[in-house]
Amino acid sequence: MTNQMNRVHNFSAGPAALPLEVLLQVKEDLPNYHGEGVTVMEVSHRGPLFANVFEQAQADLRELMGISDDYEVLFLQGGAQTQFALIPMNLGIDGKTAGYVDTGHWSKLAIKEAEKVGSTRVLASSQDTNYTYVPAFDTWGSTEDLSYLHITPNETIHGVEYFNFPQGLSKDVPLIGDMSSTILSRPMDVNNFGLIYAGAQKNIGPAGVTLVIIRKDLLARSADKLPNMLSYKSHAAKGSMYNTPPTFAIYLSGLVFKWLKKQGGLDAMAAINKAKADKLYACIDESQFFNNPVEKEFRSLMNVPFTLADKSQEARFLSEAAAQGLSGLKGHKAVGGMRASIYNAVAPESVDALVAFMKEFEKNL
Amino acid sequence: MTNQMNRVHNFSAGPAALPLEVLLQVKEDLPNYHGEGVTVMEVSHRGPLFANVFEQAQADLRELMGISDDYEVLFLQGGAQTQFALIPMNLGIDGKTAGYVDTGHWSKLAIKEAEKVGSTRVLASSQDTNYTYVPAFDTWGSTEDLSYLHITPNETIHGVEYFNFPQGLSKDVPLIGDMSSTILSRPMDVNNFGLIYAGAQKNIGPAGVTLVIIRKDLLARSADKLPNMLSYKSHAAKGSMYNTPPTFAIYLSGLVFKWLKKQGGLDAMAAINKAKADKLYACIDESQFFNNPVEKEFRSLMNVPFTLADKSQEARFLSEAAAQGLSGLKGHKAVGGMRASIYNAVAPESVDALVAFMKEFEKNL
Repeated sequence: MTNQMNRVHNFSAGPAALPLEVLLQVKEDLPNYHGEGVTVMEVSHRGPLFANVFEQAQADLRELMGISDDYEVLFLQGGAQTQFALIPMNLGIDGKTAGYVDTGHWSKLAIKEAEKVGSTRVLASSQDTNYTYVPAFDTWGSTEDLSYLHITPNETIHGVEYFNFPQGLSKDVPLIGDMSSTILSRPMDVNNFGLIYAGAQKNIGPAGVTLVIIRKDLLARSADKLPNMLSYKSHAAKGSMYNTPPTFAIYLSGLVFKWLKKQGGLDAMAAINKAKADKLYACIDESQFFNNPVEKEFRSLMNVPFTLADKSQEARFLSEAAAQGLSGLKGHKAVGGMRASIYNAVAPESVDALVAFMKEFEKNL
Repeated sequence: MTNQMNRVHNFSAGPAALPLEVLLQVKEDLPNYHGEGVTVMEVSHRGPLFANVFEQAQADLRELMGISDDYEVLFLQGGAQTQFALIPMNLGIDGKTAGYVDTGHWSKLAIKEAEKVGSTRVLASSQDTNYTYVPAFDTWGSTEDLSYLHITPNETIHGVEYFNFPQGLSKDVPLIGDMSSTILSRPMDVNNFGLIYAGAQKNIGPAGVTLVIIRKDLLARSADKLPNMLSYKSHAAKGSMYNTPPTFAIYLSGLVFKWLKKQGGLDAMAAINKAKADKLYACIDESQFFNNPVEKEFRSLMNVPFTLADKSQEARFLSEAAAQGLSGLKGHKAVGGMRASIYNAVAPESVDALVAFMKEFEKNL
């Protein structure tokens, strides 16, 4: 029940599965990249070898996501959580408040960090049901006085996803989205956002690179007194090369972008991802034993948490799954139970294998 | 004139050469690490597979450097330049001044960033000669009132290295060293320092992981209001796992630590590195054409900048070197000329090849 080369079906929430084809290319490129006598890791980030890798990765990402020249594409470090601090440090405005919408664990953490930096207001929250929906936009109240509006388009732990975004915001109130676990899973209109950020380790590449897509007019908000490494303006002025970027992680991300293009781009991925998620949710909904609490219209296409009616069966579920090559299924303690993360690199056959296992498990209870 | 598998002699200042043996191990571990059915990149940083990689890397580093339990060993992100900001943010004390010694390009940048955060004093500088020496400790003046004292034990661009460190500082005035380009090149007494930091991409591993070794009593200085990702205290409290660390870069660094142990540890590396540097400096000093301006007692064992008496020969030098598989020799514009970085992973044979080439080049002028 395992993939090619004895690879497991990997449902890890992150760091997550990478496409096998990409990993084999990395293997091929060691220890001599394209006959250059070095690996991508061993050369100056300012030299021609890496410049080519970097520019290609940027160009492919722009093409995949349809990112216009109004935006800078930055490859930074520190994960999405560093952005939790950098966003208010860079985009906060004295005398204004930053607006946040709380839809789960990750929104909550973003809010906590922003509160350390400046004035923050929570416009809406779905904490009342332990996060099973996105609060309706018309309950968020006025956004006019905000420095920016921050949302978490996909909650990796709670499995709640936005399929629409607030429209008609003033240009002075940029929408900011933590896309860590939804980026590249389907087409999204970047123009809705002032800033999109994402840790790489779910749908982009290995942990250690963080994508920041920022509308250029917002760079003027970064104060000159900010340390350069904490300033979007400084990073943009040097094209992500203010200091040595995580070159290997960017190279590998670039291979993932090429792989996505080969699959047919984000329209094709969306169809594949929708089919995978539909199958898994159908299995859960048809079951008397498995349950997902999220309202149907907000169910994540990437992270599918589910509980077992009998908690005492959890350990057996995990060990029997592991024995069949199904790994990374243990849920987060905030929700309990199991979680299947079915990112781009998780093949439809892996979801089929999981569904078959779940049906069999329930039958044999 | 190239190494095994057509690898070049790589004198890049950083990202720099990695041991071939390590790169081949990485290749071997793709796409199925130790029969686990995944790569190190594709699993949770909190799961047993990566925990084992991480703990082994930490233990091996502690052994190599003789790091006592008085210190935390953190694997962070953002490079040494992020530490330029984090050090004053975490270790600065209200009403006190941070002391810096200016011995070159990197000291200068560290000072510039610290000045944005708090009160800073430059105790001594060798800018008068464009950085060819370390100012004598007895000219630094009093350090008693300082929050900390920051030095740059090896200046990667100017090729200036400390072979002694100030002694007898008060425990309240921790010595802080940017060891990016000297760490692991020879034994050093960690107990001299309150905090040691280093970007990985010279002597540790690939760009994207930053080592911070901090004396535990200093963690209390990090204010609770600091964003967690900018707080040494938060990182230490979670053992570098406050968020997803750069798992692949840590795994590869761990392989480098194992490789260093196999070479005989830092005593053995020091002997090898001294022999390499001696050969190259001897070649320069015997030459009428090549010159290194640094005072002999402060010449870096890792970075050897040298100029050509006739600048118009520089392009020819570089192209003929490249033709013989000698790469990464172009110097930094702040010093001009050439620079050979001869880190741990640069084999003695590579230095021999460079010396032979330089002698031949001078003979044929």
